[in-house]
Amino acid sequence: MRAAVMYRAGDVRVEDRPDPKIVQPGDAVVRTVASCVCGSDLWPYASMPATETGRPMGHEFLGVVEETGADVTGLKAGDLVVAPFKYCDNTCDYCAKGLHNSCRHGGRYGFDGVDGGQGEAVRVPYADGTLVKLPVAADSALLPSLLTLSDVMTTGHHGAVTAGVGPGDTVLVIGDGAVGLCAVIAAVRRGAERVLLMGHHPTRTDLGRDFGATDVIAERGEEGVARVREATGDGVEKVIEAVGTRESLDTAFGAVLDGGTISRLGVPQYEEGPIGPSTFLRNITLTGGASPARAYIEQLLPDILDGTITPGRVLDRGFTLDQTPDAYRAMADRQVLKAHISL
Amino acid sequence: MRAAVMYRAGDVRVEDRPDPKIVQPGDAVVRTVASCVCGSDLWPYASMPATETGRPMGHEFLGVVEETGADVTGLKAGDLVVAPFKYCDNTCDYCAKGLHNSCRHGGRYGFDGVDGGQGEAVRVPYADGTLVKLPVAADSALLPSLLTLSDVMTTGHHGAVTAGVGPGDTVLVIGDGAVGLCAVIAAVRRGAERVLLMGHHPTRTDLGRDFGATDVIAERGEEGVARVREATGDGVEKVIEAVGTRESLDTAFGAVLDGGTISRLGVPQYEEGPIGPSTFLRNITLTGGASPARAYIEQLLPDILDGTITPGRVLDRGFTLDQTPDAYRAMADRQVLKAHISL
Repeated sequence: MRAAVMYRAGDVRVEDRPDPKIVQPGDAVVRTVASCVCGSDLWPYASMPATETGRPMGHEFLGVVEETGADVTGLKAGDLVVAPFKYCDNTCDYCAKGLHNSCRHGGRYGFDGVDGGQGEAVRVPYADGTLVKLPVAADSALLPSLLTLSDVMTTGHHGAVTAGVGPGDTVLVIGDGAVGLCAVIAAVRRGAERVLLMGHHPTRTDLGRDFGATDVIAERGEEGVARVREATGDGVEKVIEAVGTRESLDTAFGAVLDGGTISRLGVPQYEEGPIGPSTFLRNITLTGGASPARAYIEQLLPDILDGTITPGRVLDRGFTLDQTPDAYRAMADRQVLKAHISL
Repeated sequence: MRAAVMYRAGDVRVEDRPDPKIVQPGDAVVRTVASCVCGSDLWPYASMPATETGRPMGHEFLGVVEETGADVTGLKAGDLVVAPFKYCDNTCDYCAKGLHNSCRHGGRYGFDGVDGGQGEAVRVPYADGTLVKLPVAADSALLPSLLTLSDVMTTGHHGAVTAGVGPGDTVLVIGDGAVGLCAVIAAVRRGAERVLLMGHHPTRTDLGRDFGATDVIAERGEEGVARVREATGDGVEKVIEAVGTRESLDTAFGAVLDGGTISRLGVPQYEEGPIGPSTFLRNITLTGGASPARAYIEQLLPDILDGTITPGRVLDRGFTLDQTPDAYRAMADRQVLKAHISL
């Protein structure tokens, strides 16, 4: 099969790889129908050291089940399924708590002999636990939105859940990338009355307004904090930080009210953060983290099926699998918000 | 009047100070009946630079109202009252949310012309908002426990509340100081089934067992983490960190399960902490902070009045006001858990 492999920062190639086969009885082989490039793929694209064997890329995909192992009971060849961005058994103590990304048997696509999602097919371990059947045809117009259940929409939702967003709330979303925009959708979906979106790419913040953002703040850093305070009187109780840089974390601490909550969705690009006496005296809660996407797929699915939410709009340009290197480049250059790869 | 004043690290003196008088119409003057020394008083006792004017000390006290300003309606001379460790209006937006320590008009005893609590009398601003009447006589045997409502008991309670402790929970409390021990009381009071207390002073951990701790872990650091994991199978979902050093924070991160919560009660003695990718990928929530003591006094009062909880037992040695310098020394030398000053 053909699949995307990264060899070092800036070097993504589409090449021939062995066709996936059932290895464990719980495996399924999924023929990929759609995949995409994640904002987090851009971190290795910017910094990965050279490797001889390369790393199969991609962790967001949906596709059609081609073959199942002997122990798989909930899926059969021909089923259209979406995969959360990590596989999981959906039975361990962490999964039982809804923390599927900490699954005792879980793992990442592209590691440990498991294929990446940016390729023609994927062997999915713990297929019964991992994959969710989609009640639409493989050519449905809903496919882009359903694909976001793999990661960005479930991640945005995780931010709104962990920040405790509820009816009438005012929420600040920092970052106008695909995750930030999905966090806007999620906050509105949970009843937030006012959603401030901090971002400086007008095409993205315009999409954020379409999703329900009531205020757009183009400034960053201290100036951004000042704008938030101006707009809200004093600050906000709930902040969703969807970037991951230290600067955006500092902005979150600056904009949050005493007693407020910062939920992080962007993978931290720092090791230490400002949790000294000031954070303590102000009773600020820091929460969020890697989304347990699997926990949320069934919750969000009905809203996509009935058109209540349309997160697929963040996939603003399509590519073929062979164009995957172009997709990375376009996203890294901020020409594309999120690249959709059709197979 | 006589009152304790700190001039520099290690130098606490009891000296004559002006008798407090009503300054604002919302003030009350409270004649102190009992006060105590806080673990947080030991930080300046260890490190305060020299000052010529000195700093009046103490923020935990109960006493009898002597005089009230023209606007005070809820209190009258002769009322026995307890003061939370910061004064507050109990009407601003932060107080309305139960975050009294961030009160828009609040402040600290010993600063801005307000007396400290380790003295014969205190002018209390916003007396109606701050002080809570106690339905006992000034010679009640319950006074030590009622005095802990000023700070340590309400602080321990804040840890249990913000960590989300509920029936059946397993909780780790790090630190066998007065706050840690009160956190044990609070966790048990909220229904925790298993409370692990990490501390290495046997007289304190014995008291912790009396308060309901089911396990005592004398080891610290990595060894302490290993003991917690051994005792619980894998770690704990809820950690109350009642020390404030970076070491104890690291222990908390080591002992907490993925998806778990660390609530901090010890004032951080660090500016930055370990909130990088690992904390993020593990979905750890960091919460807690300075307790809004005023918010909790009425909630905890009935349990002290009926003897359900006896937090006054943390006050393990009595001193007169003139002996306050000895009280500091004894606490700094760890000969005394928490010094009770009777007036």
